[in-house]
Amino acid sequence: MRESDLLRHIYTRSDDLAAAFGDVLVGPGDDAAVVRTSSGDRLVITVDQLVEGRHYDPATDLDLVARKAIARSVSDIAAMGAIPAFGLATGLIPRGYADADDLFDAMAKWARHWNCPLIGGDIAFAGEGQPLSMTTTVIGKLDPAANPTLRSNARPGDELWLTGQVGGSFASGWHLRFDPRLAAGLEASKLPRAAAIDLSDGLGRDAARVAVASNVILEIEAAKLPISHRAKSWRDACADGEDYELLLALPPRPPEAKAPPINTAPTLIGPVGQVRALHPGESPTATITDPHGSTHDAQSLGWDHE
Amino acid sequence: MRESDLLRHIYTRSDDLAAAFGDVLVGPGDDAAVVRTSSGDRLVITVDQLVEGRHYDPATDLDLVARKAIARSVSDIAAMGAIPAFGLATGLIPRGYADADDLFDAMAKWARHWNCPLIGGDIAFAGEGQPLSMTTTVIGKLDPAANPTLRSNARPGDELWLTGQVGGSFASGWHLRFDPRLAAGLEASKLPRAAAIDLSDGLGRDAARVAVASNVILEIEAAKLPISHRAKSWRDACADGEDYELLLALPPRPPEAKAPPINTAPTLIGPVGQVRALHPGESPTATITDPHGSTHDAQSLGWDHE
Repeated sequence: MRESDLLRHIYTRSDDLAAAFGDVLVGPGDDAAVVRTSSGDRLVITVDQLVEGRHYDPATDLDLVARKAIARSVSDIAAMGAIPAFGLATGLIPRGYADADDLFDAMAKWARHWNCPLIGGDIAFAGEGQPLSMTTTVIGKLDPAANPTLRSNARPGDELWLTGQVGGSFASGWHLRFDPRLAAGLEASKLPRAAAIDLSDGLGRDAARVAVASNVILEIEAAKLPISHRAKSWRDACADGEDYELLLALPPRPPEAKAPPINTAPTLIGPVGQVRALHPGESPTATITDPHGSTHDAQSLGWDHE
Repeated sequence: MRESDLLRHIYTRSDDLAAAFGDVLVGPGDDAAVVRTSSGDRLVITVDQLVEGRHYDPATDLDLVARKAIARSVSDIAAMGAIPAFGLATGLIPRGYADADDLFDAMAKWARHWNCPLIGGDIAFAGEGQPLSMTTTVIGKLDPAANPTLRSNARPGDELWLTGQVGGSFASGWHLRFDPRLAAGLEASKLPRAAAIDLSDGLGRDAARVAVASNVILEIEAAKLPISHRAKSWRDACADGEDYELLLALPPRPPEAKAPPINTAPTLIGPVGQVRALHPGESPTATITDPHGSTHDAQSLGWDHE
């Protein structure tokens, strides 16, 4: 069974969650869940795994492994427009692994760096030769005035923006060194409505997820994309994955506006496309128009882990 | 490096956490962390791993595997006197594993059973033949009037109580079928002060943890322990582990009192011992006096995973 099938089943099973549990505002299926505490505070919660040989090369510097383990979850918090507050980490450590203490030390350091100190965790030991694997749970806070930047918030007429370039993340090492786009998410959450997703499985597939969640078409123009010089083609750039940039769908600017609708560092790039309504009989998806004017289904690009 | 050494390093590194991050009320080292949200709500958070071949036999029924994956974390919430509210689960699934969908379905079911529905998670795939492993994060709520039942809350003169019997958990299958002692934890949290720990590594070692956290001596009397008929001896019963009962240190009752100091189902068993102050030069630990009157250091019993 592929990851996408498994996830679809999980989301279907969770459809009634918000109705059955009133404090669950957003359940499985977005970058993170949103819950409400007794006094009405809203928290954003996510968990991610990082597996040796799958998400990083075994020869990778330990500090960068720890960095990525924390940063992936922080990026999910950014994609909801929230602020990291607390973290928890687990390690499944192969017997004989000599660096466990340094690894946890480095994870604790990076968690503090992003203001989500590790308040708990768990250690277990696996057989010799088995891959090291970690999980990171991060809990973020939403400002009382914030509007979480849900995948389902894109509307026809919105413009599409990126926080940085896409493609070539493995070749450049960016997949280990990325900066979660907390400032951009936070600024977007101050708008009355914005949609965001962090790009982990490739712009094509992740844009399609926003389209499905919002029941719209996302139209991306390849010629407008900020493509890494390390990507071989626009197609590779949309499929490589692990960009950890945010794709944002933001309400259109007034006709005379030149600057992006939110002011954040680094400056948003775009618009790289727009959102339109479904035609009768059409299914939600993302499309990418290549520099020659041909349109491609974005959903067929990108990673589906199996 | 042994688990206990690793954990000691982690706790030492985390010593300044509550001072550096004001919303961290209890950091690593108790059954769960306690944090404060912006409006002052208190949450209790824990994460645990469950690894095939380590925490359960590969032939174990899938539903019981899922049950244990959730119940272990719920038990940590119980040991803090909190109420489960939200859950997240991850799975590291060996390639070719056919039951991933059923596994997540069963985890979702048990999470709802204990009122901490799965609001998020993550799936990754491991190589064929590698052990299945899961993590469960559970977030609990503390009532505004509750006093979390910290390991550090035991005081000289307290009586020691158990929520059920110890020993023989693997032989009986109790380690798969235990009921997290939420009611007992909740009742204890209504007292002005109570200490609790959930027994995962054996009564001996876990009692010593309470002693160290509280800087006292816990004196347990073997003859008063409710020992499973499946345990070969009091010594085995204190070392087997995975009882998932709570050990509670509760203020002494008035001299004429017959009943336990809190009324909960199942009825507390005890007192099985008492808490005393350190003598000059003495280090905190737990002791177990055997039926012949000899006293043993409890810390040397029980599990230290390596």
